[in-house]
Amino acid sequence: MTSSLDDLPLRDDLRGLTPYGAPQAPLPIALNVNENTHPVPDAVASDILDDIAVALRDVNRYPDREFTALREGFAQYLGHGLDASQIWAGNGSNEVLQHILQAFAGPGRTVFGFAPTYSMYPLLAQGTGARWVAGERQPDYTITPEEAVAQIEQVDPDVVLLCSPNNPTGTPLGLDVIEAVYAAARGVVVVDEAYHEFAPHDAPSALTLLEGRPRLAVSRTMSKAFAFAGARVGYLAADPAFIDALRLVRLPYHLSALTQAAAVAALRNSDVMLGMVEEIVAQRDRITATLEALGYTPHESWSNFVLFGGVSDPKATWQRLYEQGVLVRDVGIPGHLRVTAGTEAETTAFLDALASIESAS
Amino acid sequence: MTSSLDDLPLRDDLRGLTPYGAPQAPLPIALNVNENTHPVPDAVASDILDDIAVALRDVNRYPDREFTALREGFAQYLGHGLDASQIWAGNGSNEVLQHILQAFAGPGRTVFGFAPTYSMYPLLAQGTGARWVAGERQPDYTITPEEAVAQIEQVDPDVVLLCSPNNPTGTPLGLDVIEAVYAAARGVVVVDEAYHEFAPHDAPSALTLLEGRPRLAVSRTMSKAFAFAGARVGYLAADPAFIDALRLVRLPYHLSALTQAAAVAALRNSDVMLGMVEEIVAQRDRITATLEALGYTPHESWSNFVLFGGVSDPKATWQRLYEQGVLVRDVGIPGHLRVTAGTEAETTAFLDALASIESAS
Repeated sequence: MTSSLDDLPLRDDLRGLTPYGAPQAPLPIALNVNENTHPVPDAVASDILDDIAVALRDVNRYPDREFTALREGFAQYLGHGLDASQIWAGNGSNEVLQHILQAFAGPGRTVFGFAPTYSMYPLLAQGTGARWVAGERQPDYTITPEEAVAQIEQVDPDVVLLCSPNNPTGTPLGLDVIEAVYAAARGVVVVDEAYHEFAPHDAPSALTLLEGRPRLAVSRTMSKAFAFAGARVGYLAADPAFIDALRLVRLPYHLSALTQAAAVAALRNSDVMLGMVEEIVAQRDRITATLEALGYTPHESWSNFVLFGGVSDPKATWQRLYEQGVLVRDVGIPGHLRVTAGTEAETTAFLDALASIESAS
Repeated sequence: MTSSLDDLPLRDDLRGLTPYGAPQAPLPIALNVNENTHPVPDAVASDILDDIAVALRDVNRYPDREFTALREGFAQYLGHGLDASQIWAGNGSNEVLQHILQAFAGPGRTVFGFAPTYSMYPLLAQGTGARWVAGERQPDYTITPEEAVAQIEQVDPDVVLLCSPNNPTGTPLGLDVIEAVYAAARGVVVVDEAYHEFAPHDAPSALTLLEGRPRLAVSRTMSKAFAFAGARVGYLAADPAFIDALRLVRLPYHLSALTQAAAVAALRNSDVMLGMVEEIVAQRDRITATLEALGYTPHESWSNFVLFGGVSDPKATWQRLYEQGVLVRDVGIPGHLRVTAGTEAETTAFLDALASIESAS
């Protein structure tokens, strides 16, 4: 009785596609999607629950469409003199990026990023009807200002997406590159700092560049450092006029009262929520050191994961790790795999499993 | 220092627009956005909170991308032999409709509905780059199968949006119209049953038409009858292939673990959650009878609101009610206002305030 997708009047540009999403498998050691593998501490969860209980009293009413308390919370967390008028948020940073692309990209426009980069960028661009153009990086995945400017001038994109540090490579991005890209670009420049909290403490954020750059936006997420992937909260900072543009494309009441309450409470506890970041950074650096000792070539990472080369047969190694209960990510870069820094025990399990395979090329 | 929106490289089709949203004002009697003004009962809120507490334990992990438990809950609630493979959900029915339009409308395609109807339809269509075409109704806002078919044949839309009962008019829609529209249409047909629970008990749902109609979808929301507007949960039922199409356009992990937990718990308590529907229907019918007695012309409503004509100066009456602490909605139909059926006390406050104005034309 069931129809086939081919029988439905689907848009032509969607025909033959498959839904995006990392393979999901219930393995004991899941280090494949760059989650924070440390649960939210009980005391914070209890505080969050208290706020949600209050929100439930009015859940029959539509939520605050302007999510004012949450925007104030993000402004305070980010610092740099930001206020709520410069903040936006969505159900995950993907939705925040989608809002940007709906406002500034879409049909007939071009979105540009330096590949390899976050695999959702081309999908988000295509989802709004925009054209995606992939730029190039050095073999070690770094970008120089000169090369960046040359590519921007050639493509003349409407939106530039800069992932800093970059996913899936972990590569740092200098502010000099961002400044050069902004100066060269006619369009909007987005710096995606999803993993910023895992960078060295003295690494400056692109937030320091916002002043006087109304086409610049800096996006963040609570999914990683805040251990809040399940709550779906992404956000950004930009000029108030930039925020006004996003109001034109968001669905009304896009952030639920429960999401707002949970995120406000989590931000109030940001010190505790971020308490595991140092531990994760230590495990990341341990992964890097151990991979080198095993003969692999890990790339410099300022994030909570490590991309490593020197894998002679990534599919085989992925499968061998899988059989030992460890899930990592084959991001499609030849000779490479990506692993998330987990707890100390999870990291040990991964490193032990990999050592037992001895498949470095 | 702040830039203007005009200085940013906004899409041309967005220039000059203002964000969608009903005027918000903190009045004691808010009957303007068709909320369920009865809070969720304490026992249910407590049960929801228990489920959210469990979800918070894993909130560091991404949520179930397929929201399987929630889809099973909706299938069970809807009945009609539906199973989880026929269910979809989003952050409010607006997002569900947006997914449909992303999959089946978008640039170069046409979306059609019979005006006046839900004011988000044209905005959702334009938001995906599709063209919106407004069809016509009878003066009493009803639609006959013959007129519907003639308009469908003329416009040949890719997506037809049928609001049943209709917002902002409350008008019932016969299954015969839906069957005729589906037979005449080449494109997808969506029956938006956001207010279905307020219709007479013997009023059949368009769910009864799903079998053998793979281009048909029936959308619902938890915002109204379930008193869950703040939680942002919309859903639909359709052929499994139709659901597959929506998977191609949704953002991964679009439904948070907290949303999923809250909605599953609410559905488990659907009897209690829906306990206020009869009371609201009684107040709606009381509004209709009293408006008639006051000399207004209320339209037949199967929803939780009443659109009434015979208002000589809607802006003035809206303002007079506002000054008495009662917020209703001027939906832009000449000579008309719309009021949501509230609690008995809220309804009395509205009716007393209106009676004191005596502005029926």
